[in-house]
Amino acid sequence: ASRIFTGAAVPDGADTVVMQEKTSHSGNELILQTIPSAAGENLRPVGSEISQGELAMQAGTGLTPAAIGFLAGMGISAVPVYTRPRVSIIVTGNELQSPGNPLGYGQVYESNSYTLLSALQQQGFTGVKVHRSVDDLQKLTLLLQTALAESDLVLMTGGVSVGDYDFTLSALQACGVETYFHKVRQKPGKPVLFGMKNAIPVFGLPGNPASVLTCFYQYVLPAIGRLMNRNLVLQTLVVPLSGQYTKTGTLTHFLKASFQNGKVSLLKGQESYKLNSFSIANCLVVMPEDQVQFNDGDLLTIHLLPI
Amino acid sequence: ASRIFTGAAVPDGADTVVMQEKTSHSGNELILQTIPSAAGENLRPVGSEISQGELAMQAGTGLTPAAIGFLAGMGISAVPVYTRPRVSIIVTGNELQSPGNPLGYGQVYESNSYTLLSALQQQGFTGVKVHRSVDDLQKLTLLLQTALAESDLVLMTGGVSVGDYDFTLSALQACGVETYFHKVRQKPGKPVLFGMKNAIPVFGLPGNPASVLTCFYQYVLPAIGRLMNRNLVLQTLVVPLSGQYTKTGTLTHFLKASFQNGKVSLLKGQESYKLNSFSIANCLVVMPEDQVQFNDGDLLTIHLLPI
Repeated sequence: ASRIFTGAAVPDGADTVVMQEKTSHSGNELILQTIPSAAGENLRPVGSEISQGELAMQAGTGLTPAAIGFLAGMGISAVPVYTRPRVSIIVTGNELQSPGNPLGYGQVYESNSYTLLSALQQQGFTGVKVHRSVDDLQKLTLLLQTALAESDLVLMTGGVSVGDYDFTLSALQACGVETYFHKVRQKPGKPVLFGMKNAIPVFGLPGNPASVLTCFYQYVLPAIGRLMNRNLVLQTLVVPLSGQYTKTGTLTHFLKASFQNGKVSLLKGQESYKLNSFSIANCLVVMPEDQVQFNDGDLLTIHLLPI
Repeated sequence: ASRIFTGAAVPDGADTVVMQEKTSHSGNELILQTIPSAAGENLRPVGSEISQGELAMQAGTGLTPAAIGFLAGMGISAVPVYTRPRVSIIVTGNELQSPGNPLGYGQVYESNSYTLLSALQQQGFTGVKVHRSVDDLQKLTLLLQTALAESDLVLMTGGVSVGDYDFTLSALQACGVETYFHKVRQKPGKPVLFGMKNAIPVFGLPGNPASVLTCFYQYVLPAIGRLMNRNLVLQTLVVPLSGQYTKTGTLTHFLKASFQNGKVSLLKGQESYKLNSFSIANCLVVMPEDQVQFNDGDLLTIHLLPI
């Protein structure tokens, strides 16, 4: 047994602390029953986690649980962060009825606000504002003005096509939102629109439920990341397809799928008005626009959905 | 152009609704400028998302954003769910000082409660209780009794080894917690303990910050999943290693790593008292206990950390 002086931290002038379980003590002394078997073993050099003056964390690093613990361990109780953007959702459509109420003639249940709220909550968002509008240009314009005044990001669903009751484009124009793109060669989500008013991004999402959520993951989530200076994109993998698929049309498809045991299998029910497959999917598969036939073993890009 | 009667929903007796953008209207009639080019195109058969009497969602399905939207779309405004377990955290150690305060002689900053709180918040947990205890058997026992009385899951950190100041084992015994396992052939996290009092799981996590978070992802998160009837395990992939590694000792190692472009690279600073590598890692790599040398291209299992 050897004797050394120690405390829970480094005594003045010492540059290592012995970490050792098999000990007893006598007054201010620690008695080691065994000697570390190799030089340097069980020793933690002072400053080995982080030295004075060393960069501890890059500005812009996401505050994961580990990052928060790392900061706390250095005694840091507060750091400047990007504020979480305030988000407003505007769902449009005369035909929309809220869940829990009986459906009237010509009505369908409104689900997009619940889907978007849940997807935002999964990213830690609280206080998201939800507005519902009938298909009326004046009312929709007023709502959009309100949303632009009190939000850092606006999500609209429905009314982004060119039918008689599609007032989203007119409302965006009336509010001075500049359109950056409208319509993307993809399915679902083809009618998606992106615009900006001052520095406030506005998404005109389609009305179909699966289109809304697909566009959320492909466009809205990365945009939220930009506002928070974080890289909020779904984790991307390239994996072999299990089974076959023949794609119709010449758009990029995002298909609901199940990734298991290193392979991805497409789920039934890919139509943009259906959410049953999305509700059990753990990823989206990207089917490139220029490929028609997909065979077993073909390597495809998948985007993992958050757990 | 053809004329059909339509509303936003299905007229009595009809079994399809024509979805068509290029239309005009006259009174109660809709005038189609173009005819769907193929039979069945742009038609949605009634009941094609879900039929009356059909199982919409398996009991136990996780309520993802898509699942919530799917339920809302069927008009369902409430479903029975498993309650989120109430979690208490007890951090132990005479040496612990809270971040933001000056360090006294022999003190280190307490970071484990912040790490665990953040990891729990990322899973949607609120109202987590945090207790701090000095190394005193009586006080720790009282705190553990309180935690067991008001929680569905208890996480303790520190004091789970066998030193003079390690009172966790004695406190667990005093409270009648039955130990199921103590110590696992892994690094970091070797001293981890799991016990139960009635139906309440108790984890005795090590004191080292990286050990705590590793054990959280490997043991605590899946246990929380069991309590909520969800499969809360990190997404697992098998991917090639970029670089080389020689493992010392005969334990399974969980190494902090970066998964990018289909390959995984180990990060510097794997010691259990360091969080710097963990704070920028996006996955943990499992290095099996019976393998010593790992070469470039070797296929390894990785566990993706939540974004």
